[in-house]
Amino acid sequence: MASNPNDPAPESDTPKVRDVIGDVLREERCSQDRTLADVAGEAAVSLQYLSEIERGRKEVSSDLLEAVCDSLELEVAEVLERAARQLRVGSDRRSRQAFMLAA
Amino acid sequence: MASNPNDPAPESDTPKVRDVIGDVLREERCSQDRTLADVAGEAAVSLQYLSEIERGRKEVSSDLLEAVCDSLELEVAEVLERAARQLRVGSDRRSRQAFMLAA
Repeated sequence: MASNPNDPAPESDTPKVRDVIGDVLREERCSQDRTLADVAGEAAVSLQYLSEIERGRKEVSSDLLEAVCDSLELEVAEVLERAARQLRVGSDRRSRQAFMLAA
Repeated sequence: MASNPNDPAPESDTPKVRDVIGDVLREERCSQDRTLADVAGEAAVSLQYLSEIERGRKEVSSDLLEAVCDSLELEVAEVLERAARQLRVGSDRRSRQAFMLAA
């Protein structure tokens, strides 16, 4: 099938693990009505770094993920499960778009 | 409660995310009866580096995790789900040990 220059590149909207983990951490922090400064302070990470992690600009190390989870009183396993769900939702959405484009 | 010097340190056997992701990748590779060299070559990573990832010695970046998953024909979401299950199993085991020690 010839590609349409108006179509998005197939990989461009595929979320990375760092994107979905960042989303999960930000959503949880916001649902707790807490500031970046508050969580960053408790996790002993700079506000700027936590902000970059939440936006998927930086990879989060295992140790830092634990520290942020401790601050949010969230299990690391729960973060991985929520991140996996977000990846699957994104994947399903792309499959439907591909199906509709092909139809 | 006074700590018993024969008890393991409470945190020492807590698996890190990098440990359980490494375990999942190694188990999947072994279940496919494939070598480190084979998967490392396909994922364009050094054999040594993949070995360190599998043993939880190195953090795996989102991009490298995708590349290894592509080689293993395994969804990234599936890796996160399996890793979360391993974290929960480890957590349950530690809770039971603490309960038995306290009883």
